[in-house]
Amino acid sequence: MKLKYPLILGSNSPRRQQILRELGVEFTIRTIDLTEEFPGSIPVDQVAGYLAKKKAEAFEAIGPDTLLLTADTVVACDARILGKPGNEQEAAIMLETLSGRSHQVYTGTCLRLNENFHLLTDRTAVSFRKLTREEIDYYVHHYMPLDKAGAYGIQEWIGMIGIDRINGSYYNVVGLPVARIYGMFQSLGLIEF
Amino acid sequence: MKLKYPLILGSNSPRRQQILRELGVEFTIRTIDLTEEFPGSIPVDQVAGYLAKKKAEAFEAIGPDTLLLTADTVVACDARILGKPGNEQEAAIMLETLSGRSHQVYTGTCLRLNENFHLLTDRTAVSFRKLTREEIDYYVHHYMPLDKAGAYGIQEWIGMIGIDRINGSYYNVVGLPVARIYGMFQSLGLIEF
Repeated sequence: MKLKYPLILGSNSPRRQQILRELGVEFTIRTIDLTEEFPGSIPVDQVAGYLAKKKAEAFEAIGPDTLLLTADTVVACDARILGKPGNEQEAAIMLETLSGRSHQVYTGTCLRLNENFHLLTDRTAVSFRKLTREEIDYYVHHYMPLDKAGAYGIQEWIGMIGIDRINGSYYNVVGLPVARIYGMFQSLGLIEF
Repeated sequence: MKLKYPLILGSNSPRRQQILRELGVEFTIRTIDLTEEFPGSIPVDQVAGYLAKKKAEAFEAIGPDTLLLTADTVVACDARILGKPGNEQEAAIMLETLSGRSHQVYTGTCLRLNENFHLLTDRTAVSFRKLTREEIDYYVHHYMPLDKAGAYGIQEWIGMIGIDRINGSYYNVVGLPVARIYGMFQSLGLIEF
Protein backbone atom coordinates (compact mmCIF):
# COMPACT_ATOMS: atom_id res chain seq x y z
CA MET A 1 0.00 0.00 0.00
CA LYS A 2 1.26 3.49 -0.75
CA LEU A 3 0.08 7.04 -1.17
CA LYS A 4 -0.45 8.57 -4.61
CA TYR A 5 1.52 11.73 -3.71
CA PRO A 6 4.54 12.47 -1.49
CA LEU A 7 3.60 13.06 2.15
CA ILE A 8 5.11 15.67 4.48
CA LEU A 9 4.43 15.27 8.18
CA GLY A 10 4.42 18.72 9.74
CA SER A 11 5.09 17.58 13.30
CA ASN A 12 8.06 17.19 15.62
CA SER A 13 6.33 14.53 17.69
CA PRO A 14 8.27 11.24 17.72
CA ARG A 15 4.99 9.45 18.52
CA ARG A 16 3.28 10.75 15.39
CA GLN A 17 6.32 9.83 13.33
CA GLN A 18 6.24 6.31 14.76
CA ILE A 19 2.54 5.85 13.95
CA LEU A 20 3.13 6.78 10.29
CA ARG A 21 6.15 4.47 10.12
CA GLU A 22 4.08 1.59 11.52
CA LEU A 23 1.35 2.38 9.01
CA GLY A 24 3.99 1.73 6.36
CA VAL A 25 3.74 4.95 4.34
CA GLU A 26 6.76 6.96 3.26
CA PHE A 27 7.00 10.53 4.46
CA THR A 28 9.41 13.34 5.17
CA ILE A 29 9.33 15.62 8.21
CA ARG A 30 9.17 19.39 8.04
CA THR A 31 8.43 21.62 10.99
CA ILE A 32 7.90 25.28 11.69
CA ASP A 33 7.93 27.32 14.87
CA LEU A 34 4.46 28.36 15.91
CA THR A 35 3.02 29.49 19.21
CA GLU A 36 0.09 27.26 20.05
CA GLU A 37 -2.27 30.10 20.88
CA PHE A 38 -5.97 30.17 20.23
CA PRO A 39 -8.81 32.63 20.91
CA GLY A 40 -10.52 31.93 24.23
CA SER A 41 -13.89 31.98 22.49
CA ILE A 42 -13.28 28.68 20.68
CA PRO A 43 -15.18 25.72 22.19
CA VAL A 44 -12.86 23.16 23.81
CA ASP A 45 -13.75 20.45 21.29
CA GLN A 46 -12.66 22.69 18.38
CA VAL A 47 -9.28 23.86 19.67
CA ALA A 48 -7.25 20.90 18.34
CA GLY A 49 -8.74 21.33 14.85
CA TYR A 50 -8.15 25.09 14.97
CA LEU A 51 -4.47 24.59 15.85
CA ALA A 52 -3.95 21.81 13.29
CA LYS A 53 -5.31 24.10 10.55
CA LYS A 54 -3.22 27.03 11.79
CA LYS A 55 -0.11 24.85 11.55
CA ALA A 56 -1.00 23.68 8.01
CA GLU A 57 -1.57 27.30 6.92
CA ALA A 58 1.71 28.47 8.41
CA PHE A 59 3.79 26.45 5.96
CA GLU A 60 4.97 28.15 2.76
CA ALA A 61 3.94 26.76 -0.61
CA ILE A 62 4.50 23.00 -0.53
CA GLY A 63 4.27 22.38 -4.26
CA PRO A 64 1.47 20.83 -6.31
CA ASP A 65 0.31 17.26 -5.70
CA THR A 66 2.06 17.10 -2.33
CA LEU A 67 0.39 16.17 0.94
CA LEU A 68 1.04 18.04 4.17
CA LEU A 69 -0.36 16.52 7.37
CA THR A 70 -0.43 18.51 10.60
CA ALA A 71 -1.97 17.65 13.95
CA ASP A 72 -2.62 18.95 17.44
CA THR A 73 -3.66 17.02 20.53
CA VAL A 74 -5.63 18.60 23.36
CA VAL A 75 -6.39 17.05 26.76
CA ALA A 76 -9.54 18.39 28.41
CA CYS A 77 -10.93 17.71 31.85
CA ASP A 78 -14.32 19.23 32.78
CA ALA A 79 -14.09 21.41 29.64
CA ARG A 80 -10.77 22.83 30.90
CA ILE A 81 -7.73 22.34 28.67
CA LEU A 82 -4.59 20.86 30.24
CA GLY A 83 -1.55 21.92 28.22
CA LYS A 84 2.04 20.80 28.54
CA PRO A 85 3.25 21.15 32.13
CA GLY A 86 6.00 23.71 32.76
CA ASN A 87 7.81 21.66 35.36
CA GLU A 88 7.61 18.45 37.38
CA GLN A 89 5.40 20.00 40.05
CA GLU A 90 2.85 21.13 37.47
CA ALA A 91 2.99 17.66 35.91
CA ALA A 92 2.18 16.07 39.29
CA ILE A 93 -0.76 18.45 39.82
CA MET A 94 -2.15 17.61 36.36
CA LEU A 95 -1.91 13.89 37.04
CA GLU A 96 -3.71 14.35 40.36
CA THR A 97 -6.46 16.16 38.44
CA LEU A 98 -6.79 13.22 36.02
CA SER A 99 -6.61 10.52 38.73
CA GLY A 100 -9.72 8.45 39.47
CA ARG A 101 -11.90 9.82 36.67
CA SER A 102 -12.24 10.10 32.92
CA HIS A 103 -11.26 12.96 30.62
CA GLN A 104 -11.36 13.74 26.90
CA VAL A 105 -8.54 13.70 24.36
CA TYR A 106 -9.06 15.50 21.05
CA THR A 107 -6.66 15.22 18.15
CA GLY A 108 -7.29 17.56 15.25
CA THR A 109 -5.57 16.81 11.96
CA CYS A 110 -5.37 18.90 8.82
CA LEU A 111 -4.44 17.55 5.39
CA ARG A 112 -3.32 20.22 2.93
CA LEU A 113 -3.35 19.33 -0.77
CA ASN A 114 -3.21 21.81 -3.64
CA GLU A 115 -4.36 24.58 -1.30
CA ASN A 116 -7.39 22.67 -0.07
CA PHE A 117 -7.50 22.03 3.70
CA HIS A 118 -9.23 18.84 4.88
CA LEU A 119 -9.91 18.90 8.60
CA LEU A 120 -10.98 16.20 11.04
CA THR A 121 -11.08 15.90 14.81
CA ASP A 122 -11.43 12.65 16.72
CA ARG A 123 -12.32 12.32 20.40
CA THR A 124 -11.43 9.58 22.88
CA ALA A 125 -12.56 9.30 26.50
CA VAL A 126 -9.72 8.09 28.76
CA SER A 127 -10.24 6.73 32.29
CA PHE A 128 -7.53 6.70 34.93
CA ARG A 129 -8.02 4.61 38.04
CA LYS A 130 -7.10 6.33 41.32
CA LEU A 131 -3.35 6.98 41.24
CA THR A 132 -1.25 7.03 44.42
CA ARG A 133 1.14 9.84 45.26
CA GLU A 134 3.99 7.34 44.95
CA GLU A 135 2.93 6.35 41.42
CA ILE A 136 2.65 9.97 40.28
CA ASP A 137 6.06 10.89 41.73
CA TYR A 138 7.66 7.79 40.26
CA TYR A 139 6.31 8.62 36.79
CA VAL A 140 7.20 12.29 36.93
CA HIS A 141 10.78 11.54 37.99
CA HIS A 142 11.49 8.56 35.73
CA TYR A 143 9.65 9.43 32.51
CA MET A 144 9.06 12.47 30.30
CA PRO A 145 5.78 14.21 31.14
CA LEU A 146 6.93 17.72 30.21
CA ASP A 147 6.55 17.48 26.43
CA LYS A 148 3.07 15.96 26.68
CA ALA A 149 -0.37 17.57 26.85
CA GLY A 150 -1.94 16.57 30.17
CA ALA A 151 1.48 15.41 31.47
CA TYR A 152 1.16 11.77 30.39
CA GLY A 153 1.83 9.43 27.50
CA ILE A 154 -0.72 6.62 27.19
CA GLN A 155 2.07 4.37 25.85
CA GLU A 156 4.34 5.04 28.85
CA TRP A 157 4.41 3.46 32.32
CA ILE A 158 1.67 5.66 33.81
CA GLY A 159 -0.64 4.84 30.89
CA MET A 160 0.02 1.13 31.28
CA ILE A 161 -0.61 0.96 35.03
CA GLY A 162 -3.17 3.75 35.31
CA ILE A 163 -5.50 3.71 32.31
CA ASP A 164 -7.94 0.86 32.72
CA ARG A 165 -10.24 1.80 29.84
CA ILE A 166 -10.70 4.11 26.90
CA ASN A 167 -13.71 4.75 24.70
CA GLY A 168 -12.66 5.69 21.17
CA SER A 169 -9.42 5.37 19.20
CA TYR A 170 -6.18 4.45 21.02
CA TYR A 171 -3.95 6.07 18.39
CA ASN A 172 -5.95 9.28 18.71
CA VAL A 173 -4.63 9.50 22.30
CA VAL A 174 -1.08 8.73 21.17
CA GLY A 175 -1.37 11.65 18.71
CA LEU A 176 -2.90 10.64 15.35
CA PRO A 177 -6.36 9.13 14.70
CA VAL A 178 -4.83 6.87 12.09
CA ALA A 179 -7.96 4.90 11.07
CA ARG A 180 -9.82 8.12 10.32
CA ILE A 181 -6.81 9.66 8.53
CA TYR A 182 -6.57 6.54 6.37
CA GLY A 183 -10.32 6.90 5.67
CA MET A 184 -9.73 10.49 4.58
CA PHE A 185 -6.86 9.40 2.29
CA GLN A 186 -9.16 6.74 0.88
CA SER A 187 -12.10 9.06 0.23
CA LEU A 188 -9.75 11.46 -1.59
CA GLY A 189 -8.50 8.61 -3.82
CA LEU A 190 -4.98 8.77 -2.39
CA ILE A 191 -4.47 5.09 -1.48
CA GLU A 192 -2.85 2.70 -3.97
CA PHE A 193 -2.32 -1.04 -3.49
CA MET B 1 9.39 0.15 40.68
CA LYS B 2 9.92 -3.57 41.01
CA LEU B 3 8.21 -6.75 42.09
CA LYS B 4 8.83 -8.29 45.51
CA TYR B 5 9.36 -11.78 44.04
CA PRO B 6 10.85 -13.11 40.80
CA LEU B 7 8.33 -13.25 37.95
CA ILE B 8 7.99 -16.00 35.35
CA LEU B 9 5.90 -15.24 32.28
CA GLY B 10 4.36 -18.48 31.08
CA SER B 11 3.70 -17.34 27.53
CA ASN B 12 5.39 -17.56 24.14
CA SER B 13 3.64 -14.44 22.85
CA PRO B 14 6.15 -11.75 21.81
CA ARG B 15 3.41 -9.14 22.38
CA ARG B 16 2.94 -10.16 26.02
CA GLN B 17 6.69 -10.15 26.52
CA GLN B 18 6.89 -6.64 25.07
CA ILE B 19 4.13 -5.33 27.36
CA LEU B 20 5.98 -6.59 30.45
CA ARG B 21 9.25 -5.11 29.18
CA GLU B 22 7.58 -1.73 28.64
CA LEU B 23 6.08 -1.97 32.12
CA GLY B 24 9.68 -2.15 33.33
CA VAL B 25 9.52 -5.31 35.43
CA GLU B 26 12.11 -8.07 35.22
CA PHE B 27 10.93 -11.52 34.25
CA THR B 28 11.99 -14.79 32.74
CA ILE B 29 10.06 -16.80 30.17
CA ARG B 30 9.06 -20.41 30.61
CA THR B 31 6.60 -22.21 28.39
CA ILE B 32 4.92 -25.58 28.19
CA ASP B 33 3.08 -27.35 25.42
CA LEU B 34 -0.64 -27.44 26.03
CA THR B 35 -3.57 -27.99 23.73
CA GLU B 36 -5.92 -25.05 24.11
CA GLU B 37 -9.03 -27.16 24.55
CA PHE B 38 -12.00 -26.36 26.74
CA PRO B 39 -15.36 -27.98 27.48
CA GLY B 40 -18.08 -26.69 25.17
CA SER B 41 -20.28 -26.03 28.19
CA ILE B 42 -18.16 -23.07 29.38
CA PRO B 43 -19.74 -19.66 28.66
CA VAL B 44 -17.77 -17.66 26.07
CA ASP B 45 -16.79 -14.97 28.57
CA GLN B 46 -15.16 -17.57 30.84
CA VAL B 47 -13.07 -19.48 28.31
CA ALA B 48 -10.00 -17.20 28.47
CA GLY B 49 -9.89 -17.43 32.26
CA TYR B 50 -10.36 -21.20 32.14
CA LEU B 51 -7.43 -21.59 29.73
CA ALA B 52 -5.18 -19.18 31.66
CA LYS B 53 -5.75 -21.21 34.85
CA LYS B 54 -5.22 -24.50 32.99
CA LYS B 55 -1.86 -23.17 31.75
CA ALA B 56 -0.84 -22.04 35.23
CA GLU B 57 -1.74 -25.45 36.69
CA ALA B 58 0.17 -27.31 34.00
CA PHE B 59 3.53 -26.02 35.20
CA GLU B 60 5.50 -28.14 37.65
CA ALA B 61 6.42 -26.74 41.05
CA ILE B 62 7.77 -23.24 40.53
CA GLY B 63 9.35 -22.78 43.93
CA PRO B 64 8.19 -20.71 46.91
CA ASP B 65 7.81 -16.93 46.65
CA THR B 66 7.91 -17.03 42.88
CA LEU B 67 5.28 -15.51 40.59
CA LEU B 68 4.00 -17.30 37.50
CA LEU B 69 1.78 -15.31 35.14
CA THR B 70 -0.16 -17.03 32.38
CA ALA B 71 -2.72 -15.61 29.97
CA ASP B 72 -5.09 -16.51 27.19
CA THR B 73 -6.84 -14.21 24.73
CA VAL B 74 -10.16 -15.09 23.12
CA VAL B 75 -11.89 -13.20 20.30
CA ALA B 76 -15.66 -13.62 20.24
CA CYS B 77 -18.19 -12.42 17.71
CA ASP B 78 -21.90 -13.01 18.41
CA ALA B 79 -20.88 -15.35 21.24
CA ARG B 80 -18.89 -17.48 18.77
CA ILE B 81 -15.18 -17.88 19.44
CA LEU B 82 -12.77 -17.14 16.59
CA GLY B 83 -9.52 -19.02 17.19
CA LYS B 84 -6.26 -18.81 15.28
CA PRO B 85 -6.87 -19.25 11.54
CA GLY B 86 -5.39 -22.38 9.95
CA ASN B 87 -4.41 -20.71 6.69
CA GLU B 88 -4.65 -17.42 4.78
CA GLN B 89 -8.10 -18.23 3.41
CA GLU B 90 -9.49 -18.83 6.91
CA ALA B 91 -7.84 -15.60 8.05
CA ALA B 92 -9.59 -13.66 5.27
CA ILE B 93 -12.97 -15.21 6.18
CA MET B 94 -12.49 -14.26 9.85
CA LEU B 95 -11.65 -10.67 8.92
CA GLU B 96 -14.76 -10.49 6.74
CA THR B 97 -16.77 -11.66 9.74
CA LEU B 98 -15.27 -8.88 11.90
CA SER B 99 -15.61 -6.15 9.24
CA GLY B 100 -18.09 -3.33 9.78
CA ARG B 101 -19.12 -4.27 13.32
CA SER B 102 -17.88 -4.68 16.86
CA HIS B 103 -16.76 -7.83 18.66
CA GLN B 104 -15.46 -8.77 22.10
CA VAL B 105 -11.91 -9.57 23.19
CA TYR B 106 -11.38 -11.38 26.50
CA THR B 107 -7.98 -11.87 28.07
CA GLY B 108 -7.87 -14.14 31.07
CA THR B 109 -4.78 -14.03 33.28
CA CYS B 110 -3.78 -16.27 36.13
CA LEU B 111 -1.16 -15.40 38.73
CA ARG B 112 0.20 -18.42 40.62
CA LEU B 113 1.99 -17.75 43.90
CA ASN B 114 2.72 -20.35 46.58
CA GLU B 115 0.02 -22.60 45.13
CA ASN B 116 -2.65 -19.92 45.19
CA PHE B 117 -4.21 -19.07 41.83
CA HIS B 118 -5.42 -15.48 41.33
CA LEU B 119 -7.62 -15.17 38.26
CA LEU B 120 -8.93 -12.15 36.38
CA THR B 121 -10.55 -11.62 33.01
CA ASP B 122 -10.87 -8.27 31.24
CA ARG B 123 -13.14 -7.54 28.28
CA THR B 124 -12.75 -4.95 25.52
CA ALA B 125 -15.22 -4.19 22.74
CA VAL B 126 -13.43 -3.61 19.41
CA SER B 127 -15.06 -1.95 16.36
CA PHE B 128 -13.83 -2.44 12.82
CA ARG B 129 -15.08 -0.13 10.13
CA LYS B 130 -16.10 -1.82 6.86
CA LEU B 131 -12.97 -3.40 5.36
CA THR B 132 -12.54 -3.79 1.60
CA ARG B 133 -11.52 -7.05 -0.04
CA GLU B 134 -8.29 -5.34 -1.12
CA GLU B 135 -7.44 -4.34 2.47
CA ILE B 136 -8.10 -7.84 3.82
CA ASP B 137 -6.00 -9.48 1.09
CA TYR B 138 -3.20 -6.96 1.58
CA TYR B 139 -3.08 -7.63 5.33
CA VAL B 140 -3.29 -11.40 5.03
CA HIS B 141 -0.44 -11.50 2.48
CA HIS B 142 1.87 -8.93 4.06
CA TYR B 143 1.43 -9.50 7.79
CA MET B 144 1.13 -12.43 10.18
CA PRO B 145 -2.51 -13.22 10.94
CA LEU B 146 -1.97 -16.96 11.49
CA ASP B 147 -0.64 -16.84 15.05
CA LYS B 148 -3.40 -14.50 16.24
CA ALA B 149 -6.84 -15.19 17.65
CA GLY B 150 -9.38 -13.64 15.28
CA ALA B 151 -6.67 -13.30 12.57
CA TYR B 152 -5.60 -9.76 13.46
CA GLY B 153 -3.19 -7.82 15.65
CA ILE B 154 -4.57 -4.50 16.87
CA GLN B 155 -1.02 -3.10 16.76
CA GLU B 156 -0.51 -4.15 13.12
CA TRP B 157 -1.54 -2.43 9.87
CA ILE B 158 -5.09 -3.80 9.82
CA GLY B 159 -5.65 -2.59 13.39
CA MET B 160 -4.32 0.85 12.55
CA ILE B 161 -6.44 1.39 9.44
CA GLY B 162 -9.48 -0.66 10.43
CA ILE B 163 -10.19 -0.21 14.15
CA ASP B 164 -11.76 3.18 14.67
CA ARG B 165 -12.76 2.67 18.29
CA ILE B 166 -12.49 0.39 21.28
CA ASN B 167 -14.31 0.38 24.60
CA GLY B 168 -12.11 -0.98 27.37
CA SER B 169 -8.38 -1.59 27.74
CA TYR B 170 -6.13 -1.40 24.66
CA TYR B 171 -3.46 -3.67 26.17
CA ASN B 172 -6.14 -6.26 26.91
CA VAL B 173 -6.59 -6.60 23.13
CA VAL B 174 -2.82 -6.80 22.58
CA GLY B 175 -2.75 -9.68 25.09
CA LEU B 176 -2.38 -8.53 28.71
CA PRO B 177 -4.73 -6.24 30.70
CA VAL B 178 -1.71 -4.59 32.26
CA ALA B 179 -3.50 -1.96 34.41
CA ARG B 180 -5.59 -4.66 36.06
CA ILE B 181 -2.60 -6.99 36.47
CA TYR B 182 -0.69 -4.15 38.14
CA GLY B 183 -3.72 -3.61 40.39
CA MET B 184 -3.64 -7.29 41.34
CA PHE B 185 0.10 -7.11 42.12
CA GLN B 186 -0.63 -4.04 44.22
CA SER B 187 -3.48 -5.57 46.20
CA LEU B 188 -1.26 -8.59 46.97
CA GLY B 189 1.48 -6.26 48.26
CA LEU B 190 3.91 -7.22 45.48
CA ILE B 191 4.87 -3.73 44.22
CA GLU B 192 7.94 -1.96 45.63
CA PHE B 193 9.14 1.55 44.77
